[in-house]
Amino acid sequence: MTTAGAVGADGEGPGRRRGRRPAGEDTRAAIVTAARTEFAQRGYEGATLRGIARAAGVDARLVHHYFDGKDDIFVAAMQLPVRPQDIVARVVAGGVDGIGERLLRFFFAVWDTPEGRERIVALLSSVLASEAGARMIKEFLTREIFGRVVAAIGGPDPELRAALAASQMVGLIMMRYVVKLEPLASADPDDFIPVVAPVMQRYLGGEFS
Amino acid sequence: MTTAGAVGADGEGPGRRRGRRPAGEDTRAAIVTAARTEFAQRGYEGATLRGIARAAGVDARLVHHYFDGKDDIFVAAMQLPVRPQDIVARVVAGGVDGIGERLLRFFFAVWDTPEGRERIVALLSSVLASEAGARMIKEFLTREIFGRVVAAIGGPDPELRAALAASQMVGLIMMRYVVKLEPLASADPDDFIPVVAPVMQRYLGGEFS
Repeated sequence: MTTAGAVGADGEGPGRRRGRRPAGEDTRAAIVTAARTEFAQRGYEGATLRGIARAAGVDARLVHHYFDGKDDIFVAAMQLPVRPQDIVARVVAGGVDGIGERLLRFFFAVWDTPEGRERIVALLSSVLASEAGARMIKEFLTREIFGRVVAAIGGPDPELRAALAASQMVGLIMMRYVVKLEPLASADPDDFIPVVAPVMQRYLGGEFS
Repeated sequence: MTTAGAVGADGEGPGRRRGRRPAGEDTRAAIVTAARTEFAQRGYEGATLRGIARAAGVDARLVHHYFDGKDDIFVAAMQLPVRPQDIVARVVAGGVDGIGERLLRFFFAVWDTPEGRERIVALLSSVLASEAGARMIKEFLTREIFGRVVAAIGGPDPELRAALAASQMVGLIMMRYVVKLEPLASADPDDFIPVVAPVMQRYLGGEFS
């Protein structure tokens, strides 16, 4: 194990000297830990890469070395198994046709694992644990997820329809993973996705307007 | 104020001696407090009127004097402003036609108040706070709410469809009251009920099957 003192020098050039990776891992971990506190205290909007670097005691360039941006640090800080913004980008890239079913299939393919469930329940717990937790998640969703969805779906009231689609997703997660209401808790996703997909399609495809 | 010692004698006959009401209020409060612990420890299924009476240090007949049944004590223990089982009974009494819109209208008429929001957020928090909290709520929903809904809607897979309708309701509550995602958080219920009602109707009316 290298010491924390070696961290700053190691991380400044991308990919150099793999043998010193452990120091880089320490730096990255320090940034993630600092980010978790910054997001909790300042919200997603209020936290800055500069502030996270300062709290981690590293140069701001190091933060840019390890992470693509604030959304990337957030995903690491929340220990998400995938970047939700990437899933959304893939889902909306296919256009509005079939967007409801694609969203559900991508989501359950990635999150319906023991690890995925655990992380998403932890996220929901932080939402309910404090106003600050709720604000942090809301700001991330609004900035990084809904912006893309709203832009993709267009039509009348896209913000309201995107929020309603999100409400159906969050409700599914709550009932399946947290409350564990049967038969939804034990059902194969193939049993309920065909029932929920038309709902998501109606919200996102604007078929209610 | 009367003393707790006067409580047992006072509560045994319904409605007698109104001047001694404060003792009755103390008894009722003791039962509610004991019930809250019993439900948290044993779940909704596991808790019994007899066990609640024992924990409250009162005769089981006194519990029957103050409450119609276990579901009634649960509503008091969770400090709900209305009995959800009564709302559901009224909603399903109208039959499957228009059940989606009726459910939404009743729900938001009753719960979309500062007090209602506060209680429902507290309930959701207890769901996420522990496995026991989640189990307690799940058992209450399954026994007292879904049984009525499933019996009323019939059709194929009524349990799954009722669970999906519940997931949409819980998601709405999470997004509007907890995450406070706009524009859903500030919208008038009349703005989103017409969009969500067809979804609820499709789930409960079995139009997906």
